[in-house]
Amino acid sequence: MKQSTLYTKTRKTLPKDEVARNAQLLLKAGFLHKEMAGVYSYLPLGLRVLKKIEAIIREEINSIGGQELFMSALQDPEIWRKTDRWSDGAIDVWFKTREERFGLSNTHEEPITAQMSHHIQSYKDLPIYAYQFQTKFRNEPRAKSGLLRTKEFVMKDLYSFSANEDDLNKFYEIVKKAYMKIFNRVGLGQNTYLTFASGGPFSKYSHEFQTLCETGEDTIFLDKKKKIAINKEVMNQAVLKDLGINKKDLKEEKAIEVGNIFKLGTKFSKPLGLMYKDKQGREHPVVMGSYGIGLGRLMATVVEVSADDNGMIWPESIAPYKVHLIELKKGLGTELYKKLMQSNVEVLYDDRDASAGEKLKDADLIGTPLRLLVSEKTGNKVEVKKRNSKTSKFLTQNETIQESL
Amino acid sequence: MKQSTLYTKTRKTLPKDEVARNAQLLLKAGFLHKEMAGVYSYLPLGLRVLKKIEAIIREEINSIGGQELFMSALQDPEIWRKTDRWSDGAIDVWFKTREERFGLSNTHEEPITAQMSHHIQSYKDLPIYAYQFQTKFRNEPRAKSGLLRTKEFVMKDLYSFSANEDDLNKFYEIVKKAYMKIFNRVGLGQNTYLTFASGGPFSKYSHEFQTLCETGEDTIFLDKKKKIAINKEVMNQAVLKDLGINKKDLKEEKAIEVGNIFKLGTKFSKPLGLMYKDKQGREHPVVMGSYGIGLGRLMATVVEVSADDNGMIWPESIAPYKVHLIELKKGLGTELYKKLMQSNVEVLYDDRDASAGEKLKDADLIGTPLRLLVSEKTGNKVEVKKRNSKTSKFLTQNETIQESL
Repeated sequence: MKQSTLYTKTRKTLPKDEVARNAQLLLKAGFLHKEMAGVYSYLPLGLRVLKKIEAIIREEINSIGGQELFMSALQDPEIWRKTDRWSDGAIDVWFKTREERFGLSNTHEEPITAQMSHHIQSYKDLPIYAYQFQTKFRNEPRAKSGLLRTKEFVMKDLYSFSANEDDLNKFYEIVKKAYMKIFNRVGLGQNTYLTFASGGPFSKYSHEFQTLCETGEDTIFLDKKKKIAINKEVMNQAVLKDLGINKKDLKEEKAIEVGNIFKLGTKFSKPLGLMYKDKQGREHPVVMGSYGIGLGRLMATVVEVSADDNGMIWPESIAPYKVHLIELKKGLGTELYKKLMQSNVEVLYDDRDASAGEKLKDADLIGTPLRLLVSEKTGNKVEVKKRNSKTSKFLTQNETIQESL
Repeated sequence: MKQSTLYTKTRKTLPKDEVARNAQLLLKAGFLHKEMAGVYSYLPLGLRVLKKIEAIIREEINSIGGQELFMSALQDPEIWRKTDRWSDGAIDVWFKTREERFGLSNTHEEPITAQMSHHIQSYKDLPIYAYQFQTKFRNEPRAKSGLLRTKEFVMKDLYSFSANEDDLNKFYEIVKKAYMKIFNRVGLGQNTYLTFASGGPFSKYSHEFQTLCETGEDTIFLDKKKKIAINKEVMNQAVLKDLGINKKDLKEEKAIEVGNIFKLGTKFSKPLGLMYKDKQGREHPVVMGSYGIGLGRLMATVVEVSADDNGMIWPESIAPYKVHLIELKKGLGTELYKKLMQSNVEVLYDDRDASAGEKLKDADLIGTPLRLLVSEKTGNKVEVKKRNSKTSKFLTQNETIQESL
């Protein structure tokens, strides 16, 4: 992509009241546009990151047997009344249309449970793992954390339908592993920990995946050796004993919740009548689990934990472009750009009429993993610098292409 | 995909009041789930079709310079007040949240025009072509046409920003061609005609793309030789004269609008203050166009025009799977399935415990382009039948794979 044709520009001024680092950088670099407090649009560079995160999650969820669907955002009050969750008392972030005629999806447990009645009759129909990427709407009162807490966001939500608790437990463990793969692939693996959080009527605990980050809203107690954490909300002596953890091995840390998984049991299947028949023809409620990841929040977390004073630093796996080619004199980069394109390298080519200072500043802000610089000084060589490194090296065009693959 | 693991089933019973053929077939075949009147969820088979349509549109719009973004569904009443379109009088299908705090996107002209103020200052920043795939919400009073008219649907909406009318006109013609390519690729090309429809303050006409179909809601007058049609709504002597069309060459037809394009001129840029400076530093309002295609409507139209009494008939380009492999005895298809997978053929493999009659009926209903049948009767051969053909042929496994590529 030629940067001269990319319609977005980097910005110097920011919307007022934008205090979160992720939002500041993503807005400055032209990845996002702020529509209102807690509501953002994804501009081309930001959408590329979002789509790469989506593709990674899709691959991993497909690989554990997930089947993708796409449910409506408008929801029927009737099915929410059956689970007693239609009132604002039950769910305080409901967005509803005028006269409360429709709900806007804050989650999809109710509609997917209702839907499954058409597909589940017998034990032979189980298990089913169904997921989607769809927008969630939540009327968050405090939406000041950029993409970390928004009124509208795309979530990957996976729902499992099993015949019994054993099968649910087995799949739950499989999802844990798939989630860690996802966090590894987007570059958060090293700082992300399985965290015990509050359960529900069916299960003692739910599990969160918490990424250590000073700006995080959550507080966790981490046992780094055992790679286990406990959310402050549930932390007490009984829990410590239960998990066999010694209080002195724990360190209090700030963290961002990047994923959460729940054993729902029969909480939704019972009131919505989702039953199956076993081999003997006896009826049982289906045993469910739900597993969420907010894509924008993942993106924001990567920014929060990896950016430096000059801008963002994207891991290769989700960078908007792998390579940023910068020419300091008109036309100097044309040949290399063509060669990179021919080698299928994702390259942003700064061919703009702009000063060297502006180009280098923008490149650091946008944060592609590899910066290629051609100028009169570099001659036949290319100055190759990794975004997260202070040193650069001078390579021939062919070496540069090898380095960019 | 093994059909035994596909979680959806074909259905015999339909929701009450579902009269549209596209909805009946898509619901029966398990492509869709009906949430409420005019609100559908896409199940795995349906989502595959939707994603293929999306990919085709993305390719064609990228190829004419479109840059993809993703705008929010929640919209700020303030910017809609500036164009006098916030009231229900101005737009009668508005969905708004309680107390009218937010609008739900029925279209995105206002927010994208407001956004562009950050990116457009000079003539050098123009033209810009920006598009997205995003949900539109429209409170349709009569939602009885299945996917043809829904309260919630994914639209590809493209917006053009040009310096003057000439540039707009040139791009408008380019879009016309790209649209015909899209309709050709999804299998509607032969029956789809450019149709003159009502314009606005800026332009005498807008253009629709109308696909001939007996169940269509629109009435058009078609000159088949000239490949031009006129929407009944604007049909009169002056228009005929204007377009140089003779009334006796016209035939009245029913049709479905599968796309529409508008020259917006300065209708939005003026009230929202989207201005640019020309070479002499003089300010002008940006000249805009908007170009829409509803993805679900396209899908429904393909069903309406191509299905037969036994079910749907998908063109290869958007079929959920290219090949439906059916075994009439357990295990007979295993080897061929493996080979097809190794050859990267998209195959749905009916390995279910079900009767021959049920399997063949479901295959016709689902409507993949090619049906492969293996049974004790076919021996070493495979019975290969196209969905839109009455005859079949017997091929070896290798010949079958060649046929499936």
